[in-house]
Amino acid sequence: MAKVAIGIDLGGTNIRAGLVDSEGGILSRIETSTSVQDGKDMVIERLIEVVKALKSDARNKTLEVSAIGLGAPGIISIEKGTIAISPNLPDWVDVPLRDVIEVKTGIPVILENDANAWAFGEKWVGEGKGLQDFIMITLGTGVGGGIINKGEILHGADGMAGEIGHMTVNPEGPRCGCGNHGCLEVYASAKGITDRTIDVIESGSKTKLREITEGNIYKINSEMVYQAAKEGDSLARDIIRAMGRYLGIGIANLINIFNPEAIIIGGGVRDAWDLFIEPLRREVRARAFRIPAERARIIKSTLKDGGLLGAAGIALRTMNSEQCL
Amino acid sequence: MAKVAIGIDLGGTNIRAGLVDSEGGILSRIETSTSVQDGKDMVIERLIEVVKALKSDARNKTLEVSAIGLGAPGIISIEKGTIAISPNLPDWVDVPLRDVIEVKTGIPVILENDANAWAFGEKWVGEGKGLQDFIMITLGTGVGGGIINKGEILHGADGMAGEIGHMTVNPEGPRCGCGNHGCLEVYASAKGITDRTIDVIESGSKTKLREITEGNIYKINSEMVYQAAKEGDSLARDIIRAMGRYLGIGIANLINIFNPEAIIIGGGVRDAWDLFIEPLRREVRARAFRIPAERARIIKSTLKDGGLLGAAGIALRTMNSEQCL
Repeated sequence: MAKVAIGIDLGGTNIRAGLVDSEGGILSRIETSTSVQDGKDMVIERLIEVVKALKSDARNKTLEVSAIGLGAPGIISIEKGTIAISPNLPDWVDVPLRDVIEVKTGIPVILENDANAWAFGEKWVGEGKGLQDFIMITLGTGVGGGIINKGEILHGADGMAGEIGHMTVNPEGPRCGCGNHGCLEVYASAKGITDRTIDVIESGSKTKLREITEGNIYKINSEMVYQAAKEGDSLARDIIRAMGRYLGIGIANLINIFNPEAIIIGGGVRDAWDLFIEPLRREVRARAFRIPAERARIIKSTLKDGGLLGAAGIALRTMNSEQCL
Repeated sequence: MAKVAIGIDLGGTNIRAGLVDSEGGILSRIETSTSVQDGKDMVIERLIEVVKALKSDARNKTLEVSAIGLGAPGIISIEKGTIAISPNLPDWVDVPLRDVIEVKTGIPVILENDANAWAFGEKWVGEGKGLQDFIMITLGTGVGGGIINKGEILHGADGMAGEIGHMTVNPEGPRCGCGNHGCLEVYASAKGITDRTIDVIESGSKTKLREITEGNIYKINSEMVYQAAKEGDSLARDIIRAMGRYLGIGIANLINIFNPEAIIIGGGVRDAWDLFIEPLRREVRARAFRIPAERARIIKSTLKDGGLLGAAGIALRTMNSEQCL
């Protein structure tokens, strides 16, 4: 019976899961709006339902699910299989997600940070194919990072490496959900863009976003900000340019520290690419060493479901390498 | 005949070289005040003299020099064996140091960044013994970095990784020799401490450093600044505290990015440890995730000649692994 894996991307706003074959093909796919904000119990219940549905689908296709790869946001302890902490989710502390899902489904689970999983997905079937050293930056609700060094995910001592979103890019900057001030995430995430925009509007600046939200500026989301920026709203443009600037500072640091072949940028916020890429590149040119800066290509991810695919790829590889031992 | 290596640390102010055995013992040692500032030709000539002296010493001890490990400051191209560029040395551009020394001495040369070599030295015979993931920060004329990931030097795509000193820790900070503004190096290197002190004195602030230098503040060096700080001079204390603060911001970033077992701090500037460690730790607590921050020990290097030893260790290991092929 041909072996497949279930890949799951547990995101800030929904769960994406799929049955993935050994070539990175998605055979079936489920998306639910259940998010980590709904609380641990609800999410775990929904994850189990999703796994059961995909498992039964596999059986109908006469395929065997060999493992589940689960990409989750926050700081993961690889050894313990837990979400140790997640900056924007106060109640997700030391959640033993791996063991709970394994026990309830009877399928081995590989738990990985969501951005690390996406990085692996890019290496497997995306823009990172053929590269040995690159850095994945995911611009979503938060800013995630996955570092590929010599073809492998860089995990550090406990699997917690890669928290690029919590690099300080402005020591006196706004407070971040992680407790620090001036993290990359407060400028470059969807939440950061929204919060920065509201800050500036509250200080009295003029913007068409007031009309768009019918005066309730707390309804603003990051998509509205790009839309207004595209239409020439100067407040919105300044926010997106500042985002590009701080992302450029962070990327310049990463280039000096890692000398990567590429920086791959994914996630919803990349949609504002045309508005932020210019200030981003300006900072990289001004701040990184010329040779590694010219070496590092800055690429927009084109992978749909990168996190899901990467999680499945990690699961398939882990099962294969264990068979070889 | 027993095999030994020559380890060389080409520093900002002098050349340190030694004959090193396979246990990391230094059998003989040469130190000259020739520095990279003296210009390429003079330095290369002196390097060759040093190698010849150590080679003849080895012969007298009936030992064979199997290779030279050469740690050099700046951005090294591992593949080409060149110093590509060095932030504080405008005339050292694409210098083919490896090939020149090999041709003139007849001994294989392994060229490596000086901080990478030191990191390897710590792993081999210093504070990094038994560790798999740590980061070496060298506080000297400049600020260097060497990253050990899974027991190996992290090189990136071309061997240029590890430039921790040129991480932006304050986007609006003073200009650095590399062209960027607000690099860690402008706050935490000997040169940075001296420059920052002169800046503040020029702005009119009171300090005993005026008397110490008999009114010529341009004679100030970093040792004078610690000395004045130790004696309670408040201007000097502020400079060293700011150094600790920015070093702490940089280290917090490294902890979030690498999840290391340790950060090892070496180089002359570490002598001010008691004055900077407190503000450094405060920033780490405030800015890094708690679990990896508690995991990462911050250690003062105790290794004398870490760069020299590490360079020799890399040379010995390279020769051994080539024999195995």
